[in-house]
Amino acid sequence: MPRDTRFALVLKNTAKLFSQNGFVATSLREVAAVSRISKAGLYYHIREKEDLLYEICRCSMTELLKLVRERVAASADPVNQLKAIVEAHTDFFRRHPHNLTVLNQQMGFLSRDRRREVARMEREYLDLIRDVIRDGRRQQAFRDVDVTVAAFSLLAVLNTLDGWYHPQGRIKPSALVQQLEVIALFGLATRAGGEHEH
Amino acid sequence: MPRDTRFALVLKNTAKLFSQNGFVATSLREVAAVSRISKAGLYYHIREKEDLLYEICRCSMTELLKLVRERVAASADPVNQLKAIVEAHTDFFRRHPHNLTVLNQQMGFLSRDRRREVARMEREYLDLIRDVIRDGRRQQAFRDVDVTVAAFSLLAVLNTLDGWYHPQGRIKPSALVQQLEVIALFGLATRAGGEHEH
Repeated sequence: MPRDTRFALVLKNTAKLFSQNGFVATSLREVAAVSRISKAGLYYHIREKEDLLYEICRCSMTELLKLVRERVAASADPVNQLKAIVEAHTDFFRRHPHNLTVLNQQMGFLSRDRRREVARMEREYLDLIRDVIRDGRRQQAFRDVDVTVAAFSLLAVLNTLDGWYHPQGRIKPSALVQQLEVIALFGLATRAGGEHEH
Repeated sequence: MPRDTRFALVLKNTAKLFSQNGFVATSLREVAAVSRISKAGLYYHIREKEDLLYEICRCSMTELLKLVRERVAASADPVNQLKAIVEAHTDFFRRHPHNLTVLNQQMGFLSRDRRREVARMEREYLDLIRDVIRDGRRQQAFRDVDVTVAAFSLLAVLNTLDGWYHPQGRIKPSALVQQLEVIALFGLATRAGGEHEH
């Protein structure tokens, strides 16, 4: 998130508005009101409403990529690297609960060049996951799965947490991470599938 | 989908328009044009644009639920029932490639009562998946996973296929189903996780 703490707070509040009411239905007047900033103060940071959406998407992907890369780099073991992805992504979601929703649902309102820039960062994230899975296959720590199917499946699980998971609810964040890791690494079945089964 | 084949075709074409351009940006003029029907002909079936969105969401969930329920009922084995869910959902996606996108992204434009009705059907689908996983746990065919985390994880994978999977691409539909089943049932790791590991 940006170093300017005032603007960081504006983006945080705006992400909540965008995720709850959508980009189109949110006005700059509301953005200014929830952040207790004048419209003139807002125009010090941005030129138009789309700039806010762009900064939320860009900063989110920058921070998420940085977090995941650092944690993945801390281990050479694919199983631990996969756990690191689950943990880093879940941490990001807890710190910025509305930003994944904005990325998933409102990115279409960015101008073409900006949408491409954010999509490029999302692609980098996908490639990072693919690399971890490919390494795992090579080291025979992972099954002979299709790397693309496996990477998109993991991303789907992580990117949709905002649709149902509430950190204050029955499932504690640490339990969520543990469950997601078990499901991703070992699946549901108690009998392990042999190589011949797929 | 509705029995009236003319209206079914209108809904099919409209789902494509809604998924590509969004509900808000699609006009009834476009809907009529792509289906080669007059606006008067369109008004024989609907009163307003939201009716189209409602019919797409309602018919999609009705058909998906019917398909999944039939296939799940055909077996008493939780592993086969889970495979049946993956197969039925993937089949639905192939038959109606744009409908999941409309359900996932445009449902917010329904009126409150209609949105609740569709959400209730989605909840039924979630509960069906939860029941299969719960049965699997009881029969010790499945690990001692959290039923809610596991059900939302499987739904996430199935509901986001429209974002990346192209049936005409490198991965054949039968291979996709097989991969998704292996990943859901057995996970990525070659070493099976013992009960003590979670």
